Amino acid sequence: MNRTVEVCMSPELMHLYNVQERIVVVVDVLRATSCMVAGLGSGVASITPFAELEACRAMKHQGYRIAAERNGHKVDGFDMGNSPYEYMATESQGQRIATTTTNGTRAIELSKASQGIYIGAFLNLTALAADLRQRTEDILILCAGWKGRFNLEDTLFGGALIQHLADCATPLDDAALAAHTLYQTQQDNLTAFLMQSAHAQRLSGPSAARDIELCLSLDKFEVVPTLQNGVLKA
Amino acid sequence: MNRTVEVCMSPELMHLYNVQERIVVVVDVLRATSCMVAGLGSGVASITPFAELEACRAMKHQGYRIAAERNGHKVDGFDMGNSPYEYMATESQGQRIATTTTNGTRAIELSKASQGIYIGAFLNLTALAADLRQRTEDILILCAGWKGRFNLEDTLFGGALIQHLADCATPLDDAALAAHTLYQTQQDNLTAFLMQSAHAQRLSGPSAARDIELCLSLDKFEVVPTLQNGVLKA
Repeated sequence: MNRTVEVCMSPELMHLYNVQERIVVVVDVLRATSCMVAGLGSGVASITPFAELEACRAMKHQGYRIAAERNGHKVDGFDMGNSPYEYMATESQGQRIATTTTNGTRAIELSKASQGIYIGAFLNLTALAADLRQRTEDILILCAGWKGRFNLEDTLFGGALIQHLADCATPLDDAALAAHTLYQTQQDNLTAFLMQSAHAQRLSGPSAARDIELCLSLDKFEVVPTLQNGVLKA
Repeated sequence: MNRTVEVCMSPELMHLYNVQERIVVVVDVLRATSCMVAGLGSGVASITPFAELEACRAMKHQGYRIAAERNGHKVDGFDMGNSPYEYMATESQGQRIATTTTNGTRAIELSKASQGIYIGAFLNLTALAADLRQRTEDILILCAGWKGRFNLEDTLFGGALIQHLADCATPLDDAALAAHTLYQTQQDNLTAFLMQSAHAQRLSGPSAARDIELCLSLDKFEVVPTLQNGVLKA
């Protein structure tokens, strides 16, 4: 068992890691990477992430469905916000989607020098672990966090993935040890624990509760999105 | 209970926090803040932290005892490295010490705009919590980490302090929730858990084991160092 797994708890810490030699799992459980998994698992043709609103908006003229979220809310003038149900809707099936979000797309940008970018969420945990097992490189789990800060849901997902990879990759850094321990001690209580998180409390109202419930569900999809030439596909 | 407590898991994330309105507890369990507590609790007159080696070395001419650590080792030409036993030694009693370390002194620098800087370690946990209870400001616990990365020992100390302040301060951010949960689930097993940490494994040999054992001991001292005009005093 020579492979290692590390956890980068925030995009602000990404410069401290040797990205070039690793494959990166980008995780933004609430809600960007959950949307990507739910969408590509429900018949969306492709998802192209953009860091900036205007570059994303411009894709409308090329026939894309455009999605944008800032501070948890849909941006005016876009077709969609950042709810996985929008990505799973009939209107999205067969479509190419251009998307930009507060935290998730930035995390993808920072991972582009790596040996490969995988999209992770509770929704595709087991399928993701199976695909990672086919690779040989060391793994870096990048938590998208919230505006640069540590968040609970992405770190717990990191711990869950480490648990699933226990037979083939050793936790290398303290962040991986902490994420794994948090998951191991809270796994029987995951939803209640995560509902304490700042982000879960920030998303309010009935549609948010429905989104969160879905985003914390395990293995609803078998799709593992990867980034190829700047585009996410199943 | 209107006060809040947050945890900044690395100096690299400090720009994301509102330092100006908070008091900051700087923690570098292995070993800078443990040295400060052990030294000032054993009769050292004062400790002046420096970010740079040469500024620290120059204090020798002003009669200071000079201490320097880089990458876990004493720097050549200095009187002391970064072992708490050096700070507790007869040679240090009554002396003014000038010190620079890889992580701890940088954390202090980044906290200077705050409403007050307190030095925390397992060695003074209960006394520190009692002093913080006398203040009214919100609290930010700054983990010195290791070269910008998250570390286990400082985060667990953060969780222990949050536990001690449970009657007067509410964990505000996800980092505080995670630190508190890690501490609550590992407190009966703290030394064994922390011995897995990257830093504990990096410090090797019999003198390091003795240092670590001391640094993980609870409440050996009642001193609470604070920074006043750039100088740490009891």
